[in-house]
Amino acid sequence: MNIKIGNLIYQGKAKGIYETDDPKKVVVEFRDDITAGDGAKKDKISTKGFWNSIISAKFFEVLENAGIKTQYIDLIKPGCMLSWKLEMIPLEVITRNIAAGSLLRRYPFQPKQTFDPPIIQIDYKSDEYGDPMLNTDIAIALDLIDEEKLKIIKGTSLKINKTLKDFLESKGLLFPDFKIEYGYDMDGNIILGDEISPDTCRFWDSETCDVLDKDLFRQGESGVIEAYKRVASIILDDEDKKRWNIEL
Amino acid sequence: MNIKIGNLIYQGKAKGIYETDDPKKVVVEFRDDITAGDGAKKDKISTKGFWNSIISAKFFEVLENAGIKTQYIDLIKPGCMLSWKLEMIPLEVITRNIAAGSLLRRYPFQPKQTFDPPIIQIDYKSDEYGDPMLNTDIAIALDLIDEEKLKIIKGTSLKINKTLKDFLESKGLLFPDFKIEYGYDMDGNIILGDEISPDTCRFWDSETCDVLDKDLFRQGESGVIEAYKRVASIILDDEDKKRWNIEL
Repeated sequence: MNIKIGNLIYQGKAKGIYETDDPKKVVVEFRDDITAGDGAKKDKISTKGFWNSIISAKFFEVLENAGIKTQYIDLIKPGCMLSWKLEMIPLEVITRNIAAGSLLRRYPFQPKQTFDPPIIQIDYKSDEYGDPMLNTDIAIALDLIDEEKLKIIKGTSLKINKTLKDFLESKGLLFPDFKIEYGYDMDGNIILGDEISPDTCRFWDSETCDVLDKDLFRQGESGVIEAYKRVASIILDDEDKKRWNIEL
Repeated sequence: MNIKIGNLIYQGKAKGIYETDDPKKVVVEFRDDITAGDGAKKDKISTKGFWNSIISAKFFEVLENAGIKTQYIDLIKPGCMLSWKLEMIPLEVITRNIAAGSLLRRYPFQPKQTFDPPIIQIDYKSDEYGDPMLNTDIAIALDLIDEEKLKIIKGTSLKINKTLKDFLESKGLLFPDFKIEYGYDMDGNIILGDEISPDTCRFWDSETCDVLDKDLFRQGESGVIEAYKRVASIILDDEDKKRWNIEL
């Protein structure tokens, strides 16, 4: 692939976005930085960006195959994803199949209580305000989104959930919840952006209930990168390992 | 009126509910206790219950005259309201016309920014969980309400807002926001309950922007009861003062 990488145009807590010589495309760099508690806890975990980029690429491909448009174009190399340029919407869209995390601290749900239909929660992505939860009226009053686009986002998130949950369950993983972000492409379409990785999802082993995601880091436990690699080894097939030149 | 007051059946932070010899009716006692910050700040303010019961009675009458059903039957005497017995729904329904209070701490709204349409926010009424904000999915998953009833509650709250806002503006008061609670009557209808008073609403003088509500207590300012009396003197007409035997 013949893409020239230009200037850094956005620096997030765990990823950087670089312009390319094609104004419609950017390169997303997955870094090894890891944070929790709105950035209160910070570290670097060697090869985390590598594994997250591969896991995200695989999930984006699964979604594209199910007819869901994403920002993903190609994994140039592990850690470096060629993507459509999006104008990101500052919303964190969380879909929950099983009660875990902040939901249990905030509301009287039972641990591991399942939700059918899933719960969708939309937070305002703002470090300054601590990512507060929104409701429809507040999101619209803040001019973050309108009602019609909110419906598209919720409908797409449920479709993404169904697709990934089925895929993961077929591989022996539970999918308690995940956070995604959307953006507008050049034509104003709402497209799935950001990443789908153990940084932004919960994955539990269906048999052992082993935690295979960032909760290990949040709780100060060891084996973070081993868990991320285990997710990769579970979801990638031999063809994926070959084309991305990965040993697991 | 010939009503016998029986046992206390519910003790809230500022009101008590007593059974009567009619199983369909209760007596609501408005006490002088005042709290803020989920009960962290507590006090007693002499005659506060008296004034809140009268202000609530007046608002309930204004709403009944506009065709909105409420729990209110009659003010037996100031401080003591005969009401229909309701099974209360543990939701705090907040309607906002002007940005103030916790909304400004949680989100980047401008102070005194107006909302048209108003914002409706629904919190889970729970001291243990600190009255967390809900969204539709979470409220339904917690089994607090269903989608149809939520629509009734939102629609009724908007009608209540319009009625009270028009009434107050005609009297020279702004109505930034208010919190109401609903319950089910014996036939399963959703009825407005609780109170509508300076404890549960914001009232600002339209000209001077003087605060005439519990924010004075929250902010440790003097003149709380004078402000509550001023609300009463603004909203009551001569007929009200006569039948309730009030001097203002």
